[in-house]
Amino acid sequence: MNVCVVGLGLLGGSFALAMKEKFPETNIIGVDKNPENADKALKLGIADEIKEYDEGISTCDLAVLATPVNVMHRQLPEALDLLDEKAILIDFGSTKEALCEIAENHPKRGRYVALHPIAGTENSGPEAAFAHLLHNKMMIFCEVNRSDKDAVDLNKRIFKSMNMHLSYMGAAEHDLHIAYVSHLSHISSFALGLTVLEKEKNEKNIFNMAGSGFSSTVRLAKSSPEMWAPIFKQNGENISEALDAYIQKLVEFKEIIDNRNDGESLKEMRKANEIRRVLAGIQKKKVS
Amino acid sequence: MNVCVVGLGLLGGSFALAMKEKFPETNIIGVDKNPENADKALKLGIADEIKEYDEGISTCDLAVLATPVNVMHRQLPEALDLLDEKAILIDFGSTKEALCEIAENHPKRGRYVALHPIAGTENSGPEAAFAHLLHNKMMIFCEVNRSDKDAVDLNKRIFKSMNMHLSYMGAAEHDLHIAYVSHLSHISSFALGLTVLEKEKNEKNIFNMAGSGFSSTVRLAKSSPEMWAPIFKQNGENISEALDAYIQKLVEFKEIIDNRNDGESLKEMRKANEIRRVLAGIQKKKVS
Repeated sequence: MNVCVVGLGLLGGSFALAMKEKFPETNIIGVDKNPENADKALKLGIADEIKEYDEGISTCDLAVLATPVNVMHRQLPEALDLLDEKAILIDFGSTKEALCEIAENHPKRGRYVALHPIAGTENSGPEAAFAHLLHNKMMIFCEVNRSDKDAVDLNKRIFKSMNMHLSYMGAAEHDLHIAYVSHLSHISSFALGLTVLEKEKNEKNIFNMAGSGFSSTVRLAKSSPEMWAPIFKQNGENISEALDAYIQKLVEFKEIIDNRNDGESLKEMRKANEIRRVLAGIQKKKVS
Repeated sequence: MNVCVVGLGLLGGSFALAMKEKFPETNIIGVDKNPENADKALKLGIADEIKEYDEGISTCDLAVLATPVNVMHRQLPEALDLLDEKAILIDFGSTKEALCEIAENHPKRGRYVALHPIAGTENSGPEAAFAHLLHNKMMIFCEVNRSDKDAVDLNKRIFKSMNMHLSYMGAAEHDLHIAYVSHLSHISSFALGLTVLEKEKNEKNIFNMAGSGFSSTVRLAKSSPEMWAPIFKQNGENISEALDAYIQKLVEFKEIIDNRNDGESLKEMRKANEIRRVLAGIQKKKVS
């Protein structure tokens, strides 16, 4: 199978490596507008060959868009135009509603399957890719009723082979929930990093006093700005709502602290502790 | 050496285990107001014997307070009263200014060394303790000029033997910086957990959509409310200032998102990315 991976970064690269591991006969056609990334992807064994975008898309059986979401908006209709009529197009974008709307009236809509793998690290670029990034993670399929059955089935088979858990939802529903469960944590982390960097002009203090707790909470502040700026723009409405709720919660917490009300602070933290049970459910799911 | 550990939880228990590993002749006298914890500590080999508070403190060479900081406020002067005149008292509290003030005019002030190990996990209780919790972490010594030289020297020796990095600062300075670098991350995480739990009434959505990013950012929301409520109360002024700065940053970020201003959002995230370099410095320090 000829698989064309557009965007040879963390996600595209990791998918390519996993394909080569699970389906050794796969030929990976790499496409990247950055020639340096394309070179690295060849050297790292992520891509078997490098092609131009048009040629890559029109000669493959499966094309994957793994570019920033603003770039995908341009690439999605182009790719459907170029695609062989039996080939399949998927994308790994973090926002789904606008992409599904763009594809909605395309004559080849059925060949497109909208996906979002809940997987990533704070690192980016081909060097950050590894074959097991998707292993044991969740793959969300959006609006599958708009895709051809054979296209959905092939993707189910591919991602099950990578030990992924599959989940199905509407695109609007996806974008709302992902704002709370993923996009908000990125902003809380970026803002934490900025606050500490601005207030602690002397890095030695961060250096001396940061523990694993700070490192864990601020980890996502290392994420790629080029990837996240378009996500924040596209899912702006949902993220704004999530941020309102988060800021409101912090204002309440500040009031509790200003009033030295430890009864209330205990109560709120005990409620927050519930997240342990919810996340333990996730752990359990992931090893089962 | 007889070491009396008051509070047989994560920190006290881990210190006891590390002492027994590094100084096998140590006899650990455990003190805990909760008999169940005391029993567990005996069974887990954390304590060699269990004593009442007064007896434990008055018969040891080194006493450690590893209780919530509000309890320490009561215990610190009592412990100095009870202590043998050659014995040493240390504490592991996360706030230092109020404790140093309480000890300030005590006739045995010199026997007290105010410490803060930058180490912990989101778990608590004797079962959460492990011998290497302190390994490669930072130990902050506060107001060492107020402690007797032999007391400081013994603690340097003990914590260096556990491969800790030592750092020295004033108590007020400690409390201000720790508000930004530790206490703020805990609140940002508790508030994130609360926001998501309140908005996502259907846990299945969290379950299906949470990735390692959310888990990492929300990890501290699992922390012990009984330990953190007194810290938030005691360091209220500094934490309130840190929260103001954090909320302000989030409000600015929300404005950027509401204006779909991706130029500005890119700029802010690139600034936040600096935290990678700062934390890499910490990693480097920790393995060196």
